[in-house]
Amino acid sequence: RINGDRLWHSLMDMAQIGALSNGGCGRLTLTDDDQIARDLFTQWCEEAGCTVTFDRLGNMFARRPGRNPDLLPIALGSHLDTQPHGGKFDGVYGVLAGLEVVRSLNDHGIETDAAIEVVNWTNEEGARFAPAMLCSGVYSGLFDLEFALTRVDKDGLCLKEELDRIGYAGKEPCGAHDLGAFLEAHIEQGPVLERHDEIIGVVAGGQGQRWYDVVVLGCDAHSGSTPMSGRRDALIAAARIIAAVQTIALDHGPEGVGTVGELHVCPNSRNTIPGEVRFSIDFRHPDDNALSAMDEAIHAVADAERDAEVQLDMIWHNPPVHFDSRCVEAIETATRALGYPHRRMISGAGHDACQVARKVPTAMVFVPCKDGLSHNEAEWAEPDHLAAGCNVLFQAALTLSTH
Amino acid sequence: RINGDRLWHSLMDMAQIGALSNGGCGRLTLTDDDQIARDLFTQWCEEAGCTVTFDRLGNMFARRPGRNPDLLPIALGSHLDTQPHGGKFDGVYGVLAGLEVVRSLNDHGIETDAAIEVVNWTNEEGARFAPAMLCSGVYSGLFDLEFALTRVDKDGLCLKEELDRIGYAGKEPCGAHDLGAFLEAHIEQGPVLERHDEIIGVVAGGQGQRWYDVVVLGCDAHSGSTPMSGRRDALIAAARIIAAVQTIALDHGPEGVGTVGELHVCPNSRNTIPGEVRFSIDFRHPDDNALSAMDEAIHAVADAERDAEVQLDMIWHNPPVHFDSRCVEAIETATRALGYPHRRMISGAGHDACQVARKVPTAMVFVPCKDGLSHNEAEWAEPDHLAAGCNVLFQAALTLSTH
Ligand SMILES: NC(=O)NCCC(=O)O
Ligand SMILES: NC(=O)NCCC(=O)O
Repeated sequence: RINGDRLWHSLMDMAQIGALSNGGCGRLTLTDDDQIARDLFTQWCEEAGCTVTFDRLGNMFARRPGRNPDLLPIALGSHLDTQPHGGKFDGVYGVLAGLEVVRSLNDHGIETDAAIEVVNWTNEEGARFAPAMLCSGVYSGLFDLEFALTRVDKDGLCLKEELDRIGYAGKEPCGAHDLGAFLEAHIEQGPVLERHDEIIGVVAGGQGQRWYDVVVLGCDAHSGSTPMSGRRDALIAAARIIAAVQTIALDHGPEGVGTVGELHVCPNSRNTIPGEVRFSIDFRHPDDNALSAMDEAIHAVADAERDAEVQLDMIWHNPPVHFDSRCVEAIETATRALGYPHRRMISGAGHDACQVARKVPTAMVFVPCKDGLSHNEAEWAEPDHLAAGCNVLFQAALTLSTH
Repeated sequence: RINGDRLWHSLMDMAQIGALSNGGCGRLTLTDDDQIARDLFTQWCEEAGCTVTFDRLGNMFARRPGRNPDLLPIALGSHLDTQPHGGKFDGVYGVLAGLEVVRSLNDHGIETDAAIEVVNWTNEEGARFAPAMLCSGVYSGLFDLEFALTRVDKDGLCLKEELDRIGYAGKEPCGAHDLGAFLEAHIEQGPVLERHDEIIGVVAGGQGQRWYDVVVLGCDAHSGSTPMSGRRDALIAAARIIAAVQTIALDHGPEGVGTVGELHVCPNSRNTIPGEVRFSIDFRHPDDNALSAMDEAIHAVADAERDAEVQLDMIWHNPPVHFDSRCVEAIETATRALGYPHRRMISGAGHDACQVARKVPTAMVFVPCKDGLSHNEAEWAEPDHLAAGCNVLFQAALTLSTH
């Protein structure tokens, strides 16, 4: 068994970095706070006897050697970055649960056949640099290194500069660091486990997602002296598209979801009719055909707009992913052995595991979170549930690292 | 006759200050550029023999003395501030047309009975500090001095600090500077004159307006793992209200207008369902009863919202205003004498004249602008039309200043 108290205290210590006033964390990727979090993670891993390396995109690997250097390492991890108004658990839990597995192996004096590695993937959230899961995506060959390095944030800063600035651009090519398996523990971020009074989700895959950038171009004009009939109001057109995003998601329900999370109005003045509105669309569905139908539907909405010019640009398509059956079984067997109420499920959120799975045998373990709430400062998970998920990770890692 | 070339060149010189890349001006009130514009205006007025003073809110008065010091001055003016993406004429024309009248009086060696004053009112646009026409409003007793001094911009800077910073907080109490009449020349900012091939609008009054601040509160949550049914998406609710603003305006057409010009999403992240959206509403109508009905309608929409909490706060109600008949006639008589095709009309935009009219006999003269476009960098007025409006101002000022 792992040490649930130690895991909890590490989570609370990490949550100090980038702490916000309503209990959450705002630790966007490659900021000063991310650097502090990475430094603390490195220190903890080295104290646990690991060797820490990072690749050209700052993906970090903390290695606890195994008995047999010919075996590929079993990796456990997630990400330390958060949303602008994020919680204490999303991502961090998976990284620190991995570290807790290493610490517990040390406590019990267990030597594994394959090495165990704890991983922190760069820019999982995608809140600063779109798309999400960018650097686990490069690791798996889904994106080019160059594409990742040139992503820019709202202020025009690019990923490469920021990575250099915080000192986490390594020399190892991204993707060269071979892994034998990857296991990611995470809070569910949805309501299913809680609703069914279960404490473990054995995650068999993730749903597909499509992300869009939308630019709506109208014409700046005076809000008082311009008659309604002559207007080209980009925000009215945007409001129609936002409403359509909801309708399209509901039309592909109950599994389809659609969200406009980010929106900018220009010139953003009370008495100027907006001439330009830029926003994001995020569509998801476990069925890729449904996701294609949603894509067609939103294009039809954009094409039908008459009062403004709509530019709809799909910047990312991540098809549904199925995890490796051996890894999923290792999670399920460990869960059964530990006697936790559980279910098999598909992830609603995207995860680094969904990208890594394209290259490395992968699976995930979920624990419930209060009210299914995440990407919210009030995000909360019970210490017992976090410990349970970490015990499953521990047992599954032992199974996979033994030959 | 005034000197149209000189007027045009002064307009073009002023347009250098805060010039934007698409031909317009971004010279928000009380910024460094506003200070530079005020300094240049002061220099030009002093060169024309005027004495320049300003009150506690930075409203500027450039005085050309008259023969009879017992008569109240005839004031001509408007504002030098612009929208964030404003044009070269909105406001500036009225100030520099006033200056051109003074210069022409000098050219012709005309001594008037009453003094002539050129006025620059602070924060007409309301783009930085809401509401619009704030300092002409205090001048007329519609707002308290304290209210004006404590208005804050998006960055939390308050009007008083910014006024002090640029050195334009005077000692004279706002409103103490008595005027005998106020005439404001302005581009129409709408399509009416152009459509009818007329070059002068004799403005008999302005329509009413109501401004609102709206806060929509939902709940931040994950865009991928939160089912559509459990969401409290503040942006979806905001989109419904934005659509309703348009519908309400159309329901009170063709004269009613409604606009959402400014909107902020929080936390504004692609994969977080927005928990908070803040935006403005601007409703206008020449009939105050219709404006009240629009107010009731938007409250009903806000009250009906079920998926989010809506806080609707009316921050400003400016009823329709009727200008002084003697001043309107002075404008109309001058227009007829000069032989310009013209019409009587009501202003769609708000103007300092609409505030000053509550205290001082007031009227306005409009000239056409291309495509009725204003609050847009492409705003354009023909030099001949600007000269025509200035000639009307000149003749009307002569009439009113002669006793
Ligand atoms: N797990 C998680 O919050 N990932 C962020 C990427 C996404 O699913 O939008
Ligand atoms: N004339 C003008 O653009 N005024 C700005 C105030 C308003 O009408 O919104």
